[in-house]
Amino acid sequence: MRILVLGAAGMVGRRLIDRLLAEGTIAGQAIDVIDAVDVIAAEIPATGRITIDVKASDVSDPDEITALIDKRPDIIFHLAAIVSGEAEADFEKGYRINQAGMSHLLEAIRAKGGNYRPRLVFTSSIAVFGAPFEEPIGDTFLMAPLTSYGTQKAICELLLNDYSRKGFVDGVGIRLPTIVVRPGKPNKAASSFFSGIIREPLAGQEAILPVADDVRHWVASPSAAIGFLMHAATMDTERLGARRCLTMPGLSVTIAEMIEALRMVAGDEVAGRIRREPDAVIEKIVAGWPRDFAADRALQAGFTADPDFASIIKAHIADEKQRVAQAGA
Amino acid sequence: MRILVLGAAGMVGRRLIDRLLAEGTIAGQAIDVIDAVDVIAAEIPATGRITIDVKASDVSDPDEITALIDKRPDIIFHLAAIVSGEAEADFEKGYRINQAGMSHLLEAIRAKGGNYRPRLVFTSSIAVFGAPFEEPIGDTFLMAPLTSYGTQKAICELLLNDYSRKGFVDGVGIRLPTIVVRPGKPNKAASSFFSGIIREPLAGQEAILPVADDVRHWVASPSAAIGFLMHAATMDTERLGARRCLTMPGLSVTIAEMIEALRMVAGDEVAGRIRREPDAVIEKIVAGWPRDFAADRALQAGFTADPDFASIIKAHIADEKQRVAQAGA
Repeated sequence: MRILVLGAAGMVGRRLIDRLLAEGTIAGQAIDVIDAVDVIAAEIPATGRITIDVKASDVSDPDEITALIDKRPDIIFHLAAIVSGEAEADFEKGYRINQAGMSHLLEAIRAKGGNYRPRLVFTSSIAVFGAPFEEPIGDTFLMAPLTSYGTQKAICELLLNDYSRKGFVDGVGIRLPTIVVRPGKPNKAASSFFSGIIREPLAGQEAILPVADDVRHWVASPSAAIGFLMHAATMDTERLGARRCLTMPGLSVTIAEMIEALRMVAGDEVAGRIRREPDAVIEKIVAGWPRDFAADRALQAGFTADPDFASIIKAHIADEKQRVAQAGA
Repeated sequence: MRILVLGAAGMVGRRLIDRLLAEGTIAGQAIDVIDAVDVIAAEIPATGRITIDVKASDVSDPDEITALIDKRPDIIFHLAAIVSGEAEADFEKGYRINQAGMSHLLEAIRAKGGNYRPRLVFTSSIAVFGAPFEEPIGDTFLMAPLTSYGTQKAICELLLNDYSRKGFVDGVGIRLPTIVVRPGKPNKAASSFFSGIIREPLAGQEAILPVADDVRHWVASPSAAIGFLMHAATMDTERLGARRCLTMPGLSVTIAEMIEALRMVAGDEVAGRIRREPDAVIEKIVAGWPRDFAADRALQAGFTADPDFASIIKAHIADEKQRVAQAGA
């Protein structure tokens, strides 16, 4: 099996490749080559049997995409995107990377013709939905994005469905919840604090909470996200019919529930490192986000959610221990 | 006011221009110029005060679109499209005309910059919806098209919403019901018989009915469609918020109800000219079409449906009389 990962240098891409290397097989077949592509060359440690081809490439260049598809990957993970804030600030770049990139990919696959019909796993986003919402948001709720990023993801979903229906590709689109706990440093995303209020206290640092304790959000762990990708790559797609894109099962939790889970797992002292500092701008942004979904189709199709928020925290603690051990080795 | 009509040679485009010429004003302002554009030059009779610029142009050519937008039309009606069957048969042409055409138009408008923000009325389609349906289909039901045509229209809707949200254009998308009674000859569309079973008997000819009498469909008259376009061109768009595209209010009628209305309006002899000749292929296609909508948002926004099916028949009879009188004059 040859696997192409577009967006290999990101947090999800790196973890996916780690998982593929650890498994060694996918859908019962040995993995031979992984093409790890991103706009910057991904740093991937040398490994054993599996060849890893690291390449810096731009998904918005049709020729570069065609060259990647000429290698006829069996499974393609398309994770490459610029984030919501950047797509909103730079209208042209957002459409060029997030939408035209997908079009070039689908056209390159279609151009191969014959019996080439790879599995294409595309990471969409709950940003395809916009307020006012039904609650919980079900599988037949309209896509009415309130950002250019959400619009671009929604267009990609429509294209993935149509190219799959026509038999050019075997697509699955997965709408990821907000990933919590993201490792590393805080970033400038408005959602950054959802990870920060767990990650920083566990690392002995103070975390700022800019919203009220009753704010509810839709989250999944990094390892649940990798589980979604692996299942999307190997599942029977016949059951999806013409609707190839699914809201992934997350957990709908309030800030209060997140903090209570942190207290249970790590104790009062850790949970006490959260400082409440309301930020009207962030409060307003977060108020426009979806809070709860009924991800019935995904559950029926075999996607699995994190069992509870305490498990997400415990998994993060285990990940950090392993990271520190590896860094020390 | 300068008005650009893309798709001016089609049935809807021709009727829209007739209406604009008859009114002479729009939104309380005099119409000065109508740019009547289609892939073939529209035949439009010379008129009085209003200048009509007829042009054969291809919406899939960005330069031609830019040249049209350089004239800074105040209102743009984008009706140009290839039909469902052709878009399904010719994948590339469908995307080139129906989707890239809209992208070029929006980009040409955005490129003007400054305070240029024309009203753009776009004709979408109920083909953006695909089975399985909720019934009636409400305003928050997902777009899950089962054709490339429906996919292209859905993408155009998403783009229209996003470009409007960003302030580049002032867009309104209207999803037209099946237009009944279409004048002229039967065509190869699977929906052709919905007009045929009214038009042919009224003209003294036999009509074939290929589906069962209990088949239900969503229809509007040509004159209701023109009413939708005129209202979309002049309405207050603030009330639409970020959701600029609306299902237009049609009538949900069964074949039996259509025939009964024909009997009431034109008598038993006319209604007796319908011959039942079931066609499994057409029955299957029609079974996949939406049958009923709750077009609440459009009604609240002031769009008006035909009062009943008998009125649609009477309007068709009046139109035909006028056409015959004009041809004889």
